[in-house]
Amino acid sequence: MGAGAGASEIDRQNAYQLGQMIAQQGWVLLTGGRNVGVMDAASKGAKAANGLTIGILPTDNTTNISDAVDIPIITDMGNARNNINVISSDVIIACGMGAGTASEIALAIKANKKVILLNDNEESQIFFSSLSKDNILIAHQPEEVIKVIKEILSDR
Amino acid sequence: MGAGAGASEIDRQNAYQLGQMIAQQGWVLLTGGRNVGVMDAASKGAKAANGLTIGILPTDNTTNISDAVDIPIITDMGNARNNINVISSDVIIACGMGAGTASEIALAIKANKKVILLNDNEESQIFFSSLSKDNILIAHQPEEVIKVIKEILSDR
Amino acid sequence: MGAGAGASEIDRQNAYQLGQMIAQQGWVLLTGGRNVGVMDAASKGAKAANGLTIGILPTDNTTNISDAVDIPIITDMGNARNNINVISSDVIIACGMGAGTASEIALAIKANKKVILLNDNEESQIFFSSLSKDNILIAHQPEEVIKVIKEILSDR
Amino acid sequence: MGAGAGASEIDRQNAYQLGQMIAQQGWVLLTGGRNVGVMDAASKGAKAANGLTIGILPTDNTTNISDAVDIPIITDMGNARNNINVISSDVIIACGMGAGTASEIALAIKANKKVILLNDNEESQIFFSSLSKDNILIAHQPEEVIKVIKEILSDR
Repeated sequence: MGAGAGASEIDRQNAYQLGQMIAQQGWVLLTGGRNVGVMDAASKGAKAANGLTIGILPTDNTTNISDAVDIPIITDMGNARNNINVISSDVIIACGMGAGTASEIALAIKANKKVILLNDNEESQIFFSSLSKDNILIAHQPEEVIKVIKEILSDR
Repeated sequence: MGAGAGASEIDRQNAYQLGQMIAQQGWVLLTGGRNVGVMDAASKGAKAANGLTIGILPTDNTTNISDAVDIPIITDMGNARNNINVISSDVIIACGMGAGTASEIALAIKANKKVILLNDNEESQIFFSSLSKDNILIAHQPEEVIKVIKEILSDR
Repeated sequence: MGAGAGASEIDRQNAYQLGQMIAQQGWVLLTGGRNVGVMDAASKGAKAANGLTIGILPTDNTTNISDAVDIPIITDMGNARNNINVISSDVIIACGMGAGTASEIALAIKANKKVILLNDNEESQIFFSSLSKDNILIAHQPEEVIKVIKEILSDR
Repeated sequence: MGAGAGASEIDRQNAYQLGQMIAQQGWVLLTGGRNVGVMDAASKGAKAANGLTIGILPTDNTTNISDAVDIPIITDMGNARNNINVISSDVIIACGMGAGTASEIALAIKANKKVILLNDNEESQIFFSSLSKDNILIAHQPEEVIKVIKEILSDR
């Protein structure tokens, strides 16, 4: 999860690397599916490593889909689809920050899902950690995210 | 908007007063509709002042509805209904804080709605103000909330 | 429930009368909220009799709302909002027929709600009665619909 | 699409065969995802032929998922998820009949999608053909369904 058109260059680079690493682990990547920002970069990274990519689209068609999405799920639900993104995922990674991303982190805590924050946004780290000590994990590079996911999955 | 079962006593008191004042202004109160926490207190305050109350329920029935809700909208959508709460409201008031409330504030910013934070939770004030300078307003008592709403409505 | 832009003149007349009679009974009218067809006519009828009208909009704004809707619920969910229409209603009246209306009748049967068909569309009467003998009731004029609703409500 | 717990033996057999044939064509199978009826049988058929299967679950968890679903999408939206089933699919096949299936056929017509009815339920064939001559196609065996899908796809 991460910003769309407003994503920073570093967020897109992190997302691309994460997509690659997720695919290399044999995991399925689920994003918001559009052809911008973090979702697009992560999907492209995953496809570069021959991964499987799912895109949960907010729209009623595939006009703005990332061309790196294998399986479009068309919801026509606008931002209410953010809840589907979150509850359909085993682990949520927030790459960067923005209002949509913040809604997904909050919905993930509500659904008792683990969220890994990959950003240098201290305000978000402090705030979300205050909402849930257990569900918010912080990482500084894509490699660390993968390590944390493995720990989460091995704890189940 | 505000916490359910986990709401603090002060949040419930603020919510009750806000409900009363909203009704006194002739405004319609929209909440998440359940019989706990901020939504219940706000609805009860509004009914005490003869207001009209709407409850957007996450469930597929009215088993846990506040008895102060006049009009139940039954969504059966779980937390995805938070987006309906937000985009159906002219102004959003976040009374206290929690994961569900945080998701509503974030979705409100995403939908370019004004949100008034009524709490003493500095982490949330700093974080959400960093997401949107224009859409986040801070108030310290119910009276101030009503004053800010009037300014917002007069600016349209 | 009934057709939008494609509603027939007779369907709109029936809807207007139904809206009036529903308001005269002191009941709340819930429709799909748009400014066309059966939803618009029913809302106008209800307002002519000083009723309260709710509109569950499929869009993310009120641009196409009927001006006879008192309380807009904005879902941004497209036709998925049809399920909210149905499960939020005590009794469903299908005035005329169309694909959207058919989806609402089917969703109502699924939710074990009573549906009154007010139309002369025999194919729909035969088909939906075959899906549920108990939940599908047929009426030929608005007066008869009101009589059937009273029987349903008194049976609870 | 088709009935859950109430599906007939012949519907489940048809669904299993359809799932196999869909996988053999290299197509992706999307169902409602639960471990009963047509969705379960179709998913099992597809997996028997090494296909890829998606399940759009109405619930907030995977407790009742078919073990032949590869990719669960968890919606927590109850029957409102039927709209996602329909608009995410290139072609809809209704195998048998029931209230949920009828809602999906109606929503598919509304979204201007082609629907193939595979059943011997004349009332449904007559009714849905009356709603849309162009979008409703009728088939009598799984082989015929595949042939019709190919015609639809080649017409695009």
